Amino acid sequence: MLVVMRAHATEEQVQAVCKRVESLGYKAHSMPGAQRVAIGITGNQGTIDPGGIEEMPGVGEVISVSKPYKLVSRDVKEDNTVIRFPRLPNNDSEAVIGGSELAVIAGPCGIESREQAFAIAERVQRTGAKFFRGGAYKPRTSPYAFQGMGVEGLKIMAEIRDRFGLRIVTEAIDGETLDQVEQYADVIQIGARNMQNFSLLKRAGRARKPVLLKRGMSATLEEFLMAAEYIMSEGNYNVILCERGVRTFADHTRNTLDLSIVPAVQRLSHLPILVDPSHGTGKRNKVTPLARAAVAVGANGLLVEVHNDPEKALSDGMQSIYPDQMDALMVEVRQIAAVLKRSVAPPVDARETAAANTR
Amino acid sequence: MLVVMRAHATEEQVQAVCKRVESLGYKAHSMPGAQRVAIGITGNQGTIDPGGIEEMPGVGEVISVSKPYKLVSRDVKEDNTVIRFPRLPNNDSEAVIGGSELAVIAGPCGIESREQAFAIAERVQRTGAKFFRGGAYKPRTSPYAFQGMGVEGLKIMAEIRDRFGLRIVTEAIDGETLDQVEQYADVIQIGARNMQNFSLLKRAGRARKPVLLKRGMSATLEEFLMAAEYIMSEGNYNVILCERGVRTFADHTRNTLDLSIVPAVQRLSHLPILVDPSHGTGKRNKVTPLARAAVAVGANGLLVEVHNDPEKALSDGMQSIYPDQMDALMVEVRQIAAVLKRSVAPPVDARETAAANTR
Amino acid sequence: MLVVMRAHATEEQVQAVCKRVESLGYKAHSMPGAQRVAIGITGNQGTIDPGGIEEMPGVGEVISVSKPYKLVSRDVKEDNTVIRFPRLPNNDSEAVIGGSELAVIAGPCGIESREQAFAIAERVQRTGAKFFRGGAYKPRTSPYAFQGMGVEGLKIMAEIRDRFGLRIVTEAIDGETLDQVEQYADVIQIGARNMQNFSLLKRAGRARKPVLLKRGMSATLEEFLMAAEYIMSEGNYNVILCERGVRTFADHTRNTLDLSIVPAVQRLSHLPILVDPSHGTGKRNKVTPLARAAVAVGANGLLVEVHNDPEKALSDGMQSIYPDQMDALMVEVRQIAAVLKRSVAPPVDARETAAANTR
Amino acid sequence: MLVVMRAHATEEQVQAVCKRVESLGYKAHSMPGAQRVAIGITGNQGTIDPGGIEEMPGVGEVISVSKPYKLVSRDVKEDNTVIRFPRLPNNDSEAVIGGSELAVIAGPCGIESREQAFAIAERVQRTGAKFFRGGAYKPRTSPYAFQGMGVEGLKIMAEIRDRFGLRIVTEAIDGETLDQVEQYADVIQIGARNMQNFSLLKRAGRARKPVLLKRGMSATLEEFLMAAEYIMSEGNYNVILCERGVRTFADHTRNTLDLSIVPAVQRLSHLPILVDPSHGTGKRNKVTPLARAAVAVGANGLLVEVHNDPEKALSDGMQSIYPDQMDALMVEVRQIAAVLKRSVAPPVDARETAAANTR
Repeated sequence: MLVVMRAHATEEQVQAVCKRVESLGYKAHSMPGAQRVAIGITGNQGTIDPGGIEEMPGVGEVISVSKPYKLVSRDVKEDNTVIRFPRLPNNDSEAVIGGSELAVIAGPCGIESREQAFAIAERVQRTGAKFFRGGAYKPRTSPYAFQGMGVEGLKIMAEIRDRFGLRIVTEAIDGETLDQVEQYADVIQIGARNMQNFSLLKRAGRARKPVLLKRGMSATLEEFLMAAEYIMSEGNYNVILCERGVRTFADHTRNTLDLSIVPAVQRLSHLPILVDPSHGTGKRNKVTPLARAAVAVGANGLLVEVHNDPEKALSDGMQSIYPDQMDALMVEVRQIAAVLKRSVAPPVDARETAAANTR
Repeated sequence: MLVVMRAHATEEQVQAVCKRVESLGYKAHSMPGAQRVAIGITGNQGTIDPGGIEEMPGVGEVISVSKPYKLVSRDVKEDNTVIRFPRLPNNDSEAVIGGSELAVIAGPCGIESREQAFAIAERVQRTGAKFFRGGAYKPRTSPYAFQGMGVEGLKIMAEIRDRFGLRIVTEAIDGETLDQVEQYADVIQIGARNMQNFSLLKRAGRARKPVLLKRGMSATLEEFLMAAEYIMSEGNYNVILCERGVRTFADHTRNTLDLSIVPAVQRLSHLPILVDPSHGTGKRNKVTPLARAAVAVGANGLLVEVHNDPEKALSDGMQSIYPDQMDALMVEVRQIAAVLKRSVAPPVDARETAAANTR
Repeated sequence: MLVVMRAHATEEQVQAVCKRVESLGYKAHSMPGAQRVAIGITGNQGTIDPGGIEEMPGVGEVISVSKPYKLVSRDVKEDNTVIRFPRLPNNDSEAVIGGSELAVIAGPCGIESREQAFAIAERVQRTGAKFFRGGAYKPRTSPYAFQGMGVEGLKIMAEIRDRFGLRIVTEAIDGETLDQVEQYADVIQIGARNMQNFSLLKRAGRARKPVLLKRGMSATLEEFLMAAEYIMSEGNYNVILCERGVRTFADHTRNTLDLSIVPAVQRLSHLPILVDPSHGTGKRNKVTPLARAAVAVGANGLLVEVHNDPEKALSDGMQSIYPDQMDALMVEVRQIAAVLKRSVAPPVDARETAAANTR
Repeated sequence: MLVVMRAHATEEQVQAVCKRVESLGYKAHSMPGAQRVAIGITGNQGTIDPGGIEEMPGVGEVISVSKPYKLVSRDVKEDNTVIRFPRLPNNDSEAVIGGSELAVIAGPCGIESREQAFAIAERVQRTGAKFFRGGAYKPRTSPYAFQGMGVEGLKIMAEIRDRFGLRIVTEAIDGETLDQVEQYADVIQIGARNMQNFSLLKRAGRARKPVLLKRGMSATLEEFLMAAEYIMSEGNYNVILCERGVRTFADHTRNTLDLSIVPAVQRLSHLPILVDPSHGTGKRNKVTPLARAAVAVGANGLLVEVHNDPEKALSDGMQSIYPDQMDALMVEVRQIAAVLKRSVAPPVDARETAAANTR
């Protein structure tokens, strides 16, 4: 931390600040400049509140220097975090998030029935995506809206993994549902509304599965990284970040997708970051363009909502794309990823899949 | 859906409608008003057939509510919700939130020690405030920051109630801490970061204590009311709303206090709404002006952070005012409240208090 | 850069410093304060060598101002800027903005006809307000919307000054209309959309009438003050700031009124700041509560839209209050102002006015 | 426009609304529904203020149906607007904005000297970009910052056109500078701060050169299109839109680049839309990733700040990329454009250029 004194601060005022800093257990380094004195503070762990000092006589401003996050930082770990998912009985290829292959996670907003989930999963698999998403516990704005199928939904997704060789990504909304999700899924999702539900973050930090953390609707970069830090501080280092749009005055999309956070995160942190253009725009016709842009900006992967019958979806139908649109999206995304030297798994031949599935 | 009973419907008729509604698989919420009883129906996914109910004795009309919120709405309950807190052994006067008396809740951000809490509580009591706030469980942006004293903090606050006759308001951050808070406190606070933690809202809805719900940092009016609806839909109708600033581009305050939401809420909802100028500005020197403004705009009360030694506060010291500033704030607030025909309890004479406290 | 003269520096010494500064190619702005004179230096691109000036007779100190604004700052001029409007033939009382009396500016959004404007002006005068506002040049979002009556509107307002003794506040939207406005009005308004129209600001800085500068929809405090600095840097020191709401995600009002900027401005700057609750909320039923709040927070005055027939107003009818509501607003505002030791001129007796007007 | 009555509105209330609508000169169409009555309003030109009606008894809400913009709309002109720039003496190839070739506009923020401008222009030309940008009139937040070289700057750019065959894009900030810009430049830029400077928009609408209109910092899609409508309503149909970031709470970039507006504009309007990743991020290291994303989302072109010595730039150095970075950017952009079936002119061989320039 750095305290910049006013231009006309007296020597006594400078001394008083130094004294206060040292009374708090830190070290003060007075650095006189041409116009004004600056006082460097060391020995703090990043948790010191500038409040008191800011109000002392002669103080101009207090600048936070040391970043509050640690484990998420490239200062601690320079190399990218690469999360590997082992081969599955039904899928010969390893899946990876954070490596040179783009991670594609696709599926419906909510699991509504076994039939719906299987129909979508089959199409998702054929696109080359290696991850299936679907909500079993849905955080809905209204208590009267569809809240998800619960454990039944989780079991359907576990079947999907066995049948289609897709890894399962699904959301937990509290400690109890996290217990369940941890048991059935491959990746535990923490939703945007819970990005600062610190109890849940700590619980996720004690889980043995990777955690996909979505950015809160009005989270700054620092808050986003600090939420990841909560998870890591409990011992779970497999955190995947996800930009999903922030709240602004703009009303042509449901949220404003902030793609610039991708290079910003990659500069500061070793953690992988995905983009969700479905929630990020809230409009079906914007999903494909923004998915292309997300890959072009350098995201490590995509999270896309796909529904075979979006008009009848029990949640978020408006922003789910059709399976055919997903196919087209993958074609474009594959080409753009190549420009950035990233690969995307090829589509799976339909007949081959059918054969494999009946083996 | 909403069933509005005739003005002279009997209690039996109301009961019969509730029974019928529940036999259809929905939940009935009887809401007695000054003129007539309204029965909110929740648990329906879309439109339900009002046929049978419309012809039952005592029923005036059946209204399909288009707004997503129901129980929070003035359509369901026209009269203001007034939450009464009974007399305490050590305090002869009733406390009320939502009535003609302005509710003043004051205290430190976090309980740091018995000495600190008692010193502040004594000063709070003397101002005429009837509620004491203090955090035992602190949701902090950093996992390395002070997280609160936990149950020890709750016990200290329970002592404060006994000693100073102040009702206790404190935050719960998950199901487990809510169990504790419900046991020790008079009002359960749900913080801004948890405004859409729907599991926690539902749990609060099953609590037997009033709930103070803070507006999320980027919550629209509708989302704010829907969060209250979550609590009410589980049966707890004693919800107190609280504006605490929203996130905008403006950087001269930590948040932008949106006072216009006070008349907006009062137009749509019967629930009381308070204002927190401490979090709403994040700066000590803005607390008093904005507290005056909050009372002038018509808020039902204030939530103010007071600390006897804010420079050494373990959290939010920067925005806590000194006890002497609180005294001055109350003098101004009392005068402004009078312009709106609201009263504020008079300050308590110091000596009288001392005498009372040693009895 | 800022030259602070000694407390007893002579006028000659001040002049000598100004001359020296200008001989160096900069502009000198002499700002007399209660205790001593400060001389702001503008026109420098970065740091300039204070050497020579520091040793001139009467000079106390030379301060390099780090904040980008200078002339607006309390560092340059500690005492509040008070703008005085002389007595008018038809109005015995002086009007003031920035003093102990609350300035009230009221009138329709746009001047639509002589009849409409006179009818409203009569009611405005009776409330005790001393300023009449009305648009002759309207910056409208659509090129197809009513764009104002132009010079005809200005002439009607000049008549209103003569007839009712009200000072006229009206908006200029470019250099040409500013020429006209300067001729007919008492205060030149620069609208929110033009807050960073730097050509217009410079032109206003060369005008001989006070300028009312509205905060831009997404202006930070610093940008707002810098816009005022533009005006002052051209020599016009009579700048009045006005908060009128900023753009946020919140959708229950048209803009979010940011009352915290009032104490923030007053801390940094000597300029008066008013609040416009009409544009600040965009909703008639929110104008009175927010006007009360604006006075309570400490604003130097109000800007309120009043219309005798708002349903038929050609612009902004939705946010204009009725004359009777204005009467009621003034009653409340007068009481709240008294709490802050501010006065508001009393209402003018209707009959007395009538008599005066026919004299 | 559509008026939705409350569920329990009386027949008299419905009639009163119809009457009011017709008294305003419009036609009212009462449409009774199952739950409530809706009243369609026709005959309005898009300028009717819903205010009065919204407050009438029984009215639930008023919904604007007909879009306020016309000339910008695809309803009026279905095919994309393609703006063609004829061959130049020194450049055989036609330039186009809005066609199948990506338009690339590059150059320094401000023209600082002939040497600087020429050095950058030479590098810009070699990348294959066909447009050179540079500011002669700079709208700066501070009156004390570099305000541009004025006409001298324009003359330098005219020379650059002659020498390098680049079309010139530069900003006008008021009527007088627009006269100058129109004379020297190929495209007249209207900056973000002037997006609602309606006098300037009208003046640009009477110019005979294409206009590049940058989105205001807090402009909604509708306001952005309405600003273009202002220009077109005066007869100039060659309008190019440009997204350059909006103001939000996010602080990791100077503005938040809202790429979703690109497909949103393209859906509603026939006008071309470019993206400025330099102002849109304010950080050099984010320019290339966001430029890639802008092309991937489907923008018609890019506006990029390039400086040969950005550390010494008199404005916006922080966000200007180096010429070598521009070369690399073009390589990536060319590949991504191909995925969208767009072309980008090839780089110009250095020796060939030299030869051409000396002919």
